[in-house]
Amino acid sequence: LASWSDYPFAISHSIERALPLAEHLFSELRERTGDGIGVTRASYGPGEQIAHDLLSEAARSLNLEIVQDAARNLYMTLPGADRQGPSWMTGSHLDSVPHGGNYDGAAGVIAGITVLAALRQTDFKPDRDITLVAIRGEEAGSWFRGRHNSLLGSRAALGRLDAEELQSAICVETGTPLAERMAGAGVNVDDLVNRRAAVVPARYKGFIELHIEQGPVLEQARVPVGVVSAIRGGLWARECVCLGSYAHAGAEPRSSRRDAVMALSEFITACEAKWIDIEKQGGDLVFTIGKLHTDSNVNALTKVAGEAKFCLDIRSGDRSTLEEIQAYVQEKARTIAGDRRVKFDFGPMTLISPTEMNPVLRQEMLSACAELGIKAIQMPSGGGHDAEEFAKAGIPASMIFIRNQNGSHNPDEAIRMEDFAQGARLLMRMLLH
Amino acid sequence: LASWSDYPFAISHSIERALPLAEHLFSELRERTGDGIGVTRASYGPGEQIAHDLLSEAARSLNLEIVQDAARNLYMTLPGADRQGPSWMTGSHLDSVPHGGNYDGAAGVIAGITVLAALRQTDFKPDRDITLVAIRGEEAGSWFRGRHNSLLGSRAALGRLDAEELQSAICVETGTPLAERMAGAGVNVDDLVNRRAAVVPARYKGFIELHIEQGPVLEQARVPVGVVSAIRGGLWARECVCLGSYAHAGAEPRSSRRDAVMALSEFITACEAKWIDIEKQGGDLVFTIGKLHTDSNVNALTKVAGEAKFCLDIRSGDRSTLEEIQAYVQEKARTIAGDRRVKFDFGPMTLISPTEMNPVLRQEMLSACAELGIKAIQMPSGGGHDAEEFAKAGIPASMIFIRNQNGSHNPDEAIRMEDFAQGARLLMRMLLH
Repeated sequence: LASWSDYPFAISHSIERALPLAEHLFSELRERTGDGIGVTRASYGPGEQIAHDLLSEAARSLNLEIVQDAARNLYMTLPGADRQGPSWMTGSHLDSVPHGGNYDGAAGVIAGITVLAALRQTDFKPDRDITLVAIRGEEAGSWFRGRHNSLLGSRAALGRLDAEELQSAICVETGTPLAERMAGAGVNVDDLVNRRAAVVPARYKGFIELHIEQGPVLEQARVPVGVVSAIRGGLWARECVCLGSYAHAGAEPRSSRRDAVMALSEFITACEAKWIDIEKQGGDLVFTIGKLHTDSNVNALTKVAGEAKFCLDIRSGDRSTLEEIQAYVQEKARTIAGDRRVKFDFGPMTLISPTEMNPVLRQEMLSACAELGIKAIQMPSGGGHDAEEFAKAGIPASMIFIRNQNGSHNPDEAIRMEDFAQGARLLMRMLLH
Repeated sequence: LASWSDYPFAISHSIERALPLAEHLFSELRERTGDGIGVTRASYGPGEQIAHDLLSEAARSLNLEIVQDAARNLYMTLPGADRQGPSWMTGSHLDSVPHGGNYDGAAGVIAGITVLAALRQTDFKPDRDITLVAIRGEEAGSWFRGRHNSLLGSRAALGRLDAEELQSAICVETGTPLAERMAGAGVNVDDLVNRRAAVVPARYKGFIELHIEQGPVLEQARVPVGVVSAIRGGLWARECVCLGSYAHAGAEPRSSRRDAVMALSEFITACEAKWIDIEKQGGDLVFTIGKLHTDSNVNALTKVAGEAKFCLDIRSGDRSTLEEIQAYVQEKARTIAGDRRVKFDFGPMTLISPTEMNPVLRQEMLSACAELGIKAIQMPSGGGHDAEEFAKAGIPASMIFIRNQNGSHNPDEAIRMEDFAQGARLLMRMLLH
C-alpha cells in the first residue's frame, strides 16, 4: 500500500462532500420501497427494480459507464488511466428480505457510488478502472423455495449459476420458477444460459464489498468498522416437516398421540442444547428456526397437531462443525421419530463451506485503517455475501463491515452516517491502490 | 327400570329396520358437506345448515312435530300418551370442526331419528313425549375466536348464553361478531336475547346424548359402548403469543437473541414433562397445542423468529388438576420470559369445571346394557359436550359413547354400524322408561 500522502490532498477529504448524495439515495430508497413496516425489495421483483433504477439514474448523472449483464446486474464504471490492466470492483446487492431494513446490501452500493462521486468531484483519474456493481437476487433464500443456492446475481455474473436452478427455484410469491420470475424482470433467460459470464476473474485486481454488520458485535465492541476474516458457511433446509397424526385434543390419551408440535419442540430444545455444548467447546455456531407452522387449513384449538412445517438455517465458520451438527440433527430426528411414531423429513439440505477473505487485502485494510485513524477489528461474517462468490471464482475478495445498531433483516436496521463515512473512506483508499 | 319384557316384542327388534334410514342420512351428510379432505359444517355456517335441512326433511317424513328456537336449534318431537308430564330429550350437534369427520355430533342426532323412526314403524305410543334436538354451534371453539364459552346452541336453548358473547366471539372465517354470523344463518338476534329460554328444565325427565367416543379407549378395550361417568373440564386459551425480537439468523450471537421459537419450544417441552409428572401421580390430564405459527408476513428462513402464536387446550376430570397446570403454565412462562428476554401473553383464559353425569341414569344405563346383552364400560369423556350444559341447567343428563376406530375431529372418523345399532338400542331403551 503506497502512502496516502502521495495522493492529492483533496482526495482524502472528498468523501465528506459526496455524503449528501448518499443521504439522498438512502432516503429515496426508503421512501420508494417502504412497505409500511420496513422495506421490501424482492429478488427480481418490483422493489429491487426501483432500487436499480435509482442507482442507474445516479450513475448517469455522474457520467459513469453503465452496462447490464444477462442477469440484469448493473455495472457502473469510472474509467482509470490504464483501461486494459486489471481493475477494481466494488459493490453489493439491492434486494432485501420481506419487511427488511434499508441498509442490508444497499449500504455497499451507495458507499461505492459515494466513492465514485467523490472522485468525480476532485477530477482525480485513478490508475485503474473502478467498477461499481449493483447485484441482483442476493436475498433469494427469502424469496425462492425449492432447490437453489441463493446469491443468484453474483453467481450469474461469474458464470456460477446452475441452469437447473432456473427451474428448481420457485418464487414464493408467484409459485413460478426462477426463470419465469427473472423474465418478468427483463432477463433474457436464453442469453443468461448461453452467453459468456460477464465478470472474467483475470481482469480484476480484487473485489471489495462494504456491508452493514448484521449482528451486534461492532456495536458492543464500540468500533465503527470491521474487516471480515471469513464468511460463515451454512447448512440450510427450507422445507422441513414433522408428520404426526391429527386427533381429538380432549379424548386422545398421551400414550397413543403422535403430536407433531410436541415432537418438534423436543427436537428444537435438543438442538439448542447441542448448540450450547458446541459453543462451550469453543466451536462457532448459530442455529435458527425462523419459520414454524402447523397447517392452517387443518389445525384447530381442539385437535392434536398432525403436521408442523419448519426450516433450518445453521451457520458456522468451520465446515467440521457444520458436519457435526448435520449428523446430530438427523440422528436426533430419527430417535424422536422412533419414540413418538412421527416422521421427520428435512427435504433438500444445502451445505456451503465457509469462505476465507483474501489475507493480503485484509492486511492492507487493517494498515489503511491505522493510517486513516479508523478504529477497526477483524471478525467473521455471520451472513453469506456476494463476496464469497467472487472469492470462490478466484478474485481476491474482502469485506468492510459498518457498525449497525439494531441488527439486520428487520425493519429497524440503523447505521450512523459518520460510521458509513469511515467505511467509504476505507473503501476509497483500497480502490485507489 | 321396568323390565324390557314388559314392552311389545316388536319394539326390541325395531332398530334393525330403521338402520337403512341412518345409513342414508350418514351418506347424504358426507356427500353434501364433504370438502375434499373431510367434512366441514361450520357453526352457523353453510355445512351446518345443510345438515339441519336434511334432518328436518327426515323428521317431516316421519310426521314428527318440528319446532325451531330463537337460536335455530331444531326440535323434533314424537308425541307420547301423556303430553303434559315431563318428557325425554335426546340429541347432539350437527356442526363439525374444519375438515372434520362425519360422525362427531351427527351420530347422536341420527341415532335419535333412528329411534323415533323405529317407534313410528311399530305404532307403539310411548308414555311420554320424546324430543330429538339437533343443536347448533357445539364446535364454536374451532370457528370463533375472542371471548366465548363454546357450546353455543345448547347454552342458547337453556338460556345460558351470555349476551356479551354475541359481540366478543369473532368468526374466524368472516372476522365478524357471532351476532352477525348468527343473523346470516337466519337467527333473529333480538329474539335470542329477549325471548324466554326454549328448554325449561322442569319439563324434562332427562337428557341423553349419544356420541362417538373421541379417543381410542373403547376400541382398545374391545367394547362397543361406553357409559360416560363425567365430562372433563378444561382450560382454554385461544390467542397466546410469545414475543421476542427478529434478528439476522447468521449474525446474531446466541447470547443476544430473543428467539420466540426457541423460547416456546422450551415452554412446550417443560409443559409436557409436567404432564407426564401429573400422570405418574395418578392425575387425569391431556395437554394440546393444536396451532403454532410464526408470523408468515414477517418470518423468513434467514431471520430469528420475533413472534410465535399458539393456543392451549388442557383438560382434566379434576378441577384441582386444572388449577395446578394453570399455575404451572403461568409460572413457567414467567421464568422463561425472564431467562430469554421474551414475553408470553396467554390472552383470555377460560377454565371450565368437570361435569359429573347423572348417577341414577348411569346406573340404569349399565343395567339396560346387561339386560340387552351389550358390552359396556364406564369412562370419562375427554371432549366437552352439550350434555354438560343440560346437566348444569339441572336436567338429569347422561351420555352413551359409541366405539370409533380413528379418533375424532379428523377426516378419518369411523364407526361400525353394528356398534351404532347397539347404541341406538340402549338409547331407545332409556327413552321409553
